[in-house]
Amino acid sequence: MTKDKNGASRRQFLTSAAALGAGAVAAGAARAAAPDPLITEVQPWASGFGDPVDAHPYGTPIRFEDDVIRRNVEWLTADTISSINFTPIHALDGTITPQGCAFERHHSGAIELAKPDFRLMINGLVDRPLVFTYEDLERFPRENHVYFLECAANTGMEWAGAQLNGAQFTHGMIHNMEYTGVPLRTLLQEAGLDAAGDLADKWIYVEGADASSNGRSIPMDKALDDVLVAFKANGEALRKEHGYPVRLVVPGWEGNMWVKWLRRIEVMDRPVESREETSKYTDVMADGSARKWTWVMDAKSVVTSPSPQSPITHGPGPLVITGMAWSGHGRITRVDVSTDGGKTWQPARLAKDGENKALTRFYLDTDWDGSEMLLQSRAIDETGYVQPTKAQLREVRGLNSVYHNNCIQTWHVTPDGKAENVEVS
Amino acid sequence: MTKDKNGASRRQFLTSAAALGAGAVAAGAARAAAPDPLITEVQPWASGFGDPVDAHPYGTPIRFEDDVIRRNVEWLTADTISSINFTPIHALDGTITPQGCAFERHHSGAIELAKPDFRLMINGLVDRPLVFTYEDLERFPRENHVYFLECAANTGMEWAGAQLNGAQFTHGMIHNMEYTGVPLRTLLQEAGLDAAGDLADKWIYVEGADASSNGRSIPMDKALDDVLVAFKANGEALRKEHGYPVRLVVPGWEGNMWVKWLRRIEVMDRPVESREETSKYTDVMADGSARKWTWVMDAKSVVTSPSPQSPITHGPGPLVITGMAWSGHGRITRVDVSTDGGKTWQPARLAKDGENKALTRFYLDTDWDGSEMLLQSRAIDETGYVQPTKAQLREVRGLNSVYHNNCIQTWHVTPDGKAENVEVS
Repeated sequence: MTKDKNGASRRQFLTSAAALGAGAVAAGAARAAAPDPLITEVQPWASGFGDPVDAHPYGTPIRFEDDVIRRNVEWLTADTISSINFTPIHALDGTITPQGCAFERHHSGAIELAKPDFRLMINGLVDRPLVFTYEDLERFPRENHVYFLECAANTGMEWAGAQLNGAQFTHGMIHNMEYTGVPLRTLLQEAGLDAAGDLADKWIYVEGADASSNGRSIPMDKALDDVLVAFKANGEALRKEHGYPVRLVVPGWEGNMWVKWLRRIEVMDRPVESREETSKYTDVMADGSARKWTWVMDAKSVVTSPSPQSPITHGPGPLVITGMAWSGHGRITRVDVSTDGGKTWQPARLAKDGENKALTRFYLDTDWDGSEMLLQSRAIDETGYVQPTKAQLREVRGLNSVYHNNCIQTWHVTPDGKAENVEVS
Repeated sequence: MTKDKNGASRRQFLTSAAALGAGAVAAGAARAAAPDPLITEVQPWASGFGDPVDAHPYGTPIRFEDDVIRRNVEWLTADTISSINFTPIHALDGTITPQGCAFERHHSGAIELAKPDFRLMINGLVDRPLVFTYEDLERFPRENHVYFLECAANTGMEWAGAQLNGAQFTHGMIHNMEYTGVPLRTLLQEAGLDAAGDLADKWIYVEGADASSNGRSIPMDKALDDVLVAFKANGEALRKEHGYPVRLVVPGWEGNMWVKWLRRIEVMDRPVESREETSKYTDVMADGSARKWTWVMDAKSVVTSPSPQSPITHGPGPLVITGMAWSGHGRITRVDVSTDGGKTWQPARLAKDGENKALTRFYLDTDWDGSEMLLQSRAIDETGYVQPTKAQLREVRGLNSVYHNNCIQTWHVTPDGKAENVEVS
């Protein structure tokens, strides 16, 4: 398929790529058809030394990438001590999110908790209440898994209409990392669950060490399934703002349950119904009633480029449309892309087979005719679930919701290559 | 198997993890058997605000991790303008290497090349010599792949004997990232290869834009196979020191061929025999003759913990031995671990099925009796190749080599948990 694409794109492409013989210059109109000094003249970076690297104990991005950073939306929270910092997904590719620009949300600030000060208590309906130090955790068999974390409020500002003009802000409450940690199952078994009796109706209540504690109740069957007590992300220690030294990883479930700065896990015979699972992180329906225990993040996708922060900067011809898809129910099996607001769909190319509860990168390698587009993507997961339209969601959920908006996103791309956030009926 | 491990480890484990009822405290001797104030008293980080995160445009590691950084070995190169900075593999886990601490080697400094100043020329035996801008590259179909990069000189200081006391220095000229880029095949086909005639005996010569240019010859069959022209690593732009904005990715082959700050690719009817493939990056044998074109990095592994920089900090009982394995010939199918200097071997647990030309993480979940160990790991790849001992390598290669030392590494672990780099006969 790549070969066909090359074949298809070549004819178009020569209009922009420079044919040396002809002396034309790459990327067309912007530069005159004179010889390109970047080719014909020796450049300073090719005739002198660059910079030493040893001076930088931990490398950071080159200054030209200074805009590829987490950003917040000031009106979203009352104070920066309880703020939300969005991943610049419009500027990323592939699937891994670097920790340095990975979404984070905190409720009472990011605390500085040293490993020697870390304690994890497991108590409640267990045979032996235990306290684990960081070093204790390192002595249990550990696993590696790549998982996405999505905040339940991701895209939540879009319920009432197209609000925020950029994929970073409409869909950037998400990241995807390779975690290393100990299965929670192992630690619960260490404490012993015989005292809990029938596990089918049991819960755990999980607290963080920060002042908010961000306590959440999790049913025992999930706790014993794929939950990790994680201490590394993308190979290195968790960042302070991601819960250093230890956080909970709850694959496929809303990010608020991935408790940071992990402190205590209590085995209980009922959920706690804490603030974070009653007045917050529940879904208020049209009739005012609230759906609760809506933990799983349904299949969702978004086109990250072109998008408002990543416009098309060239004329008609070959165009790579790309984005990401994910599902809390498992693997992404297909992503469709529409350029006409959902009237017609084309299957996108998945960069790799979808991985369980992890981001999947998709591409549509196309030839743009330069006319306007209503760009959409639609994810389908291994359960057969198809990402819904906003109209379909509103029909069921009304307009009172904040959380769990996994609707199809539309970007209106104009002939000048610019894109904006719009709704289509 | 995890379950068994838990079962096996529990009996041991209770000697260290704290039983709340008993009021004993975790991690034994270091702390007295008095109530743990970290449990019984409200801590400052739980009773006040943490820090805001918004202030940091690009996040960096917490200060407690300040030692998890790239390090160089001053005597290795004449000047820092041509230096080598090693990955702190002793402190990492999982498989992804964060760019911020990922190995890099440069020959005339790291240059600062802005995207608008980037040009890639493809010339020589092609139908249409072309120059590509960065924007041009973004218009071709792109792929994502995780690959390891290992410098041919990794472990090269160990030929004559055990030299450097730390996995970071003996094996840290390596990293493993998810790359996004355009297959080189696509760009060569764009320029047209009919003019080259029979491709079986053709080569490409690749240059970087830095003063060293680091020119390397690559046979056409590899160029048309899996080589990428990459512009992203782990989702974000390449770092300056890794070749921003564009580098070559040559999966499984020695890192020196992964030309950074890519400038020119010439299709030729013979190799150039440049400095980097004659006086350097060839293997001097016992008789003084030099092996050349030894591009593929053979199967190799190393235990990263315990190791000299990552000693055992607890007494006998459950111990996680971990390390990484890789092969330039494809997938790692098995890793064995020995605690007695290679007399006996146990199969390690692979965290995931081995991926093509990418790092594989292995674990041995064991109970340490507190006695000394001669710790080794041995990688086996999909071709059936078994990582050799240093004696076996010396038998074939003598002691004159610098490059391509993929021998089995030995750490001598003493009862106090410290480890040092040793040789076993």
